[in-house]
Amino acid sequence: MFTELRRLLIGRPLHNREAAGERLTKMKALAIFSSDALSSVGYGPEQIAVILAVSGMVAYGYFSYAFAAVLLLLGVVTLSYAQVARANPGGGGSYSVAKKNLGENTALIAAAALFADYVLTVAVSVSSGTDALVSAFPALVHWRMSINLFTLFGVLMLVNLRGIRESSNVFVIPTYLFVFGMLGMIGVGVYNAFAGTEPIIPPASMVKQQFDAAILVLVLRAFANGCSSMTGVEAISNGVPMFKKPEYVNAIKTTYWMSGLLAILLSGTSFLILHYHILPTPNVTMLSQIAEQTLGRGWMYYYIQITTMLILYLAANTSYNGLPPLMSLLAQDGYLPRYLGLRGERLSFSNGIMLLSAIAALLIFTFHGNVEHLISLYAIGVFLSFTIAQTGLVVHWNRERGENWLRRAFVNAFGAMVTGIVVLVIAVTKFSHGAWIVLVFIPTMIVIFKSINRHYRDMAEQLHLPIEDETYTQPPKGKHYVVVPVATPTRVVAETLRYAKTLNGEIIALCVVNDKEFAEKIEAKWKQWKPQVKLVTVYSPYRLVIQPLIHFIEKLERKKQPEDYITVVIPEFETRKWWHRLLHNQTGFILRTLLIFNENVAVTTIPYHLKK
Amino acid sequence: MFTELRRLLIGRPLHNREAAGERLTKMKALAIFSSDALSSVGYGPEQIAVILAVSGMVAYGYFSYAFAAVLLLLGVVTLSYAQVARANPGGGGSYSVAKKNLGENTALIAAAALFADYVLTVAVSVSSGTDALVSAFPALVHWRMSINLFTLFGVLMLVNLRGIRESSNVFVIPTYLFVFGMLGMIGVGVYNAFAGTEPIIPPASMVKQQFDAAILVLVLRAFANGCSSMTGVEAISNGVPMFKKPEYVNAIKTTYWMSGLLAILLSGTSFLILHYHILPTPNVTMLSQIAEQTLGRGWMYYYIQITTMLILYLAANTSYNGLPPLMSLLAQDGYLPRYLGLRGERLSFSNGIMLLSAIAALLIFTFHGNVEHLISLYAIGVFLSFTIAQTGLVVHWNRERGENWLRRAFVNAFGAMVTGIVVLVIAVTKFSHGAWIVLVFIPTMIVIFKSINRHYRDMAEQLHLPIEDETYTQPPKGKHYVVVPVATPTRVVAETLRYAKTLNGEIIALCVVNDKEFAEKIEAKWKQWKPQVKLVTVYSPYRLVIQPLIHFIEKLERKKQPEDYITVVIPEFETRKWWHRLLHNQTGFILRTLLIFNENVAVTTIPYHLKK
Repeated sequence: MFTELRRLLIGRPLHNREAAGERLTKMKALAIFSSDALSSVGYGPEQIAVILAVSGMVAYGYFSYAFAAVLLLLGVVTLSYAQVARANPGGGGSYSVAKKNLGENTALIAAAALFADYVLTVAVSVSSGTDALVSAFPALVHWRMSINLFTLFGVLMLVNLRGIRESSNVFVIPTYLFVFGMLGMIGVGVYNAFAGTEPIIPPASMVKQQFDAAILVLVLRAFANGCSSMTGVEAISNGVPMFKKPEYVNAIKTTYWMSGLLAILLSGTSFLILHYHILPTPNVTMLSQIAEQTLGRGWMYYYIQITTMLILYLAANTSYNGLPPLMSLLAQDGYLPRYLGLRGERLSFSNGIMLLSAIAALLIFTFHGNVEHLISLYAIGVFLSFTIAQTGLVVHWNRERGENWLRRAFVNAFGAMVTGIVVLVIAVTKFSHGAWIVLVFIPTMIVIFKSINRHYRDMAEQLHLPIEDETYTQPPKGKHYVVVPVATPTRVVAETLRYAKTLNGEIIALCVVNDKEFAEKIEAKWKQWKPQVKLVTVYSPYRLVIQPLIHFIEKLERKKQPEDYITVVIPEFETRKWWHRLLHNQTGFILRTLLIFNENVAVTTIPYHLKK
Repeated sequence: MFTELRRLLIGRPLHNREAAGERLTKMKALAIFSSDALSSVGYGPEQIAVILAVSGMVAYGYFSYAFAAVLLLLGVVTLSYAQVARANPGGGGSYSVAKKNLGENTALIAAAALFADYVLTVAVSVSSGTDALVSAFPALVHWRMSINLFTLFGVLMLVNLRGIRESSNVFVIPTYLFVFGMLGMIGVGVYNAFAGTEPIIPPASMVKQQFDAAILVLVLRAFANGCSSMTGVEAISNGVPMFKKPEYVNAIKTTYWMSGLLAILLSGTSFLILHYHILPTPNVTMLSQIAEQTLGRGWMYYYIQITTMLILYLAANTSYNGLPPLMSLLAQDGYLPRYLGLRGERLSFSNGIMLLSAIAALLIFTFHGNVEHLISLYAIGVFLSFTIAQTGLVVHWNRERGENWLRRAFVNAFGAMVTGIVVLVIAVTKFSHGAWIVLVFIPTMIVIFKSINRHYRDMAEQLHLPIEDETYTQPPKGKHYVVVPVATPTRVVAETLRYAKTLNGEIIALCVVNDKEFAEKIEAKWKQWKPQVKLVTVYSPYRLVIQPLIHFIEKLERKKQPEDYITVVIPEFETRKWWHRLLHNQTGFILRTLLIFNENVAVTTIPYHLKK
């Protein structure tokens, strides 16, 4: 039944040869790789305004300063990542770049940063998508957490376990629907602003307090928050091999298109935020307020909200394309449990997909799905991995010294410097707002990566078989002790002893008794039965069963020669109905578990399946 | 560490020979056996008043009617139970009486009723004890549930797992402190009433609405509730063997003393409830209100509250002396899981004690520790087992036909009739108030008892070994197939194969491969190594590991002769640090579990303990 349910949800297993790739046109690639970046419009500008609209300060007028810095930064990052696409035509993100060019430690920092980044992308995008939905349908406000968890487990996890193809139109259509909707809304909004009688940006939005240190911190913090608008720009450079030939040329062109679009959407949204002087309102996103102001609360408003929700959920999905393969790489390099590197029955990295969903759910749950709190964690990881990727490229260009290498190295060095500064700005201005969590998380992850790696290396050493050493292929010489715990002779005892006799060893039937009368009774029965096996009774005055057995086996272990074997043969009932199991004490199971954990003996279970 | 903690909490194991008994004087016995009965004063009269003080009705004046009926009933029950003590000098409650005299079905009804009774005694007494405490210290009102659970698990369960002696003074002193306190309070209260200028019972308390059907139901329901005052009267008759000689004479005398005391306390409390016209108040018990009215809120008030709490907790403890031995009896008769019949390392029935605590906690939790709701469930079970015990005695006297048998039979027949009527009254008047739960619970329990019994009988049949049949003692003839799942040759594989070679069977090294390249690689390595074991590769295109192994074994099972054996030898890593375990996929464990559950093969685990 469980199997059938799984078939229904996940689909039939896929054969190895069903793994396939498909080349993407620029049009399709733009939609597929840019959902993460473009969806940032859903929260990026809002996160700037949230900081500046803090009460008691008149800092809203500084919005455009922070935003201009974000826009500039976007330019730098775009140019840098165009280079990444050129340098890594095989794809692979900052972990691969760093591993190749900067060594293990930096690669692990990049891996940890990416790990945080991907998980947070899921958490932030899902929460924001739900916020867009709740803004449109306020009645859903109490269902927010349920909607988040359903999207996470019921949609994203399931769809990815099925292993939907990245190239599916499911990803293409919502992205274009969103882009056209947003462009339309911005167009209407800007036209109204310029055609209207009111000032283009009302004076209220331009009000600025005297610039001082407090304002500086506020503006920097707003900028740090705004940097979240840039998450996802790296996506194309990771997917170069999926483009049609010439791959990197097409990839670079698509990167420019994506960044251009992102810049237009961000600018338009920011303009409208200022124009309508939009302030943070609980349970309603700023984008929803803009849409309502611009388009009224008709079908166009709902179109904007629904497509925003869809593209945000799609953005979460990009992490499912990113993190499980990264974890698989790390697992193959021995930095994560090996099973994260295995493809499941649908060819997807199922363990990684489930792990990602679980961690994202934990984050959403811990932060109550509050985007603002999650953003603080978000940007720092993203920019840290930007910086590492750029630095790695500088080393790469310097090593290759190909055409124009100096210019290219300069672009990346500049990018690394700028994004590095951004990391510092975020770390300082948002330290107590959650950035510290990431700064603790990354070293912790590195310690974990390294401990795992050490364990796997230790194990490989212990498992290594010197194939030329013939001691292992010679037949064993030692004696074989076979211990069978028994009680009153029953059919189970008889069959177990019979099996034990096939093992070609010295059989010891071991009986634990609480008192002398019982011992005598058992011995009498045994004599009458004559199973031709030595019966040893162990007296247990404290009415324990398992400890005396284990003590006996420990004593035997100390007594035996090193080349001797001990096997403990344990009969175990398997009942026909599940609840019947509750009627048997689990002595066999407990004994088995304890022996396997602690002793150096072979443990054989003879299942005895009850017929009724 | 776990062992040490257990030692600290529970104490060292006790030797079989440390089981001991001690004879009790009447003085001590009275205290030990009557805590359950006497503590009913803490809630019995209140439960009558709670029903009659229902708003919109003027029924408070009928209090004395309901109470008089309760008092009469107490007389009947006392006389009956004096007879039980005489008829069963060996102790044993209504389950034993019914089993001996009335057959299996009635005995099981009695067992189910007693089961409910004991569990509810714990739930009601603990909740009432905490109510007494909270009445005195209202600040504790939000800690009520925590106090209940702590008393249950931290005190009662722990103390009983340690196996405190029933004869300990811990039980004697609080009972007498309570009795003297109560007598003092009643004395002061009654003196004040008669010496004061006000009427002895104020007219407000005597007001009665015209008697009609609604009032009749109310009075009957009040009576049904009041019957809870009588719980615990049977305790002495269960403990006859613990009295000094002549046992039953002393037991009967003590029964009369106990009932006399109970009657005085109940009457006194009821008088004062009427005299002060006490009405139900949230979070304050009526006893607390009486104490405050009579004694003021000085040390005497706190003395009454604390001793009330103590005796109620002690009353809960009596169930710990009653239910685990009853479950042990039922387990020995095969009506409950056998392990409930075993004595733990401190000679107490530890499994039963933990089960009782868990069920009582569940009840308190479900009913939010609300005594009034629990009471509805309570009285019906108690009176049902009263009725069965009396009926059993009628059969007993009739069978024995000793001295005065006719008179004795008459007393018990009368008792059975009266308590039987009470069962009907409670069942009808309190049906929708919770009595239905008990009426569902008892048949359910009987079905469970019988199913368990059937399973044990089926098992005994399947396990029966015809000792004279020599087929079981003859040496096994069949072939022995030894299947060893392997992968790349490592030291673990080598050592596992070596062990397999001792087993005197045909060894099949089974390797699951995902693709042909890997298969060729493994076969090449194998050829180079030459372990002198046949390697069988199974191709798994869907990247599954466990299913192909199981399919292979299933096929082998179908192919083999009936007398042949199959053993699957599974190597399993045991890591040194617990978290290392997370780094290994649990293939060995899962394969082992599935094989044991589903297949007819011996499963041998070779633990391989990693050294670092």
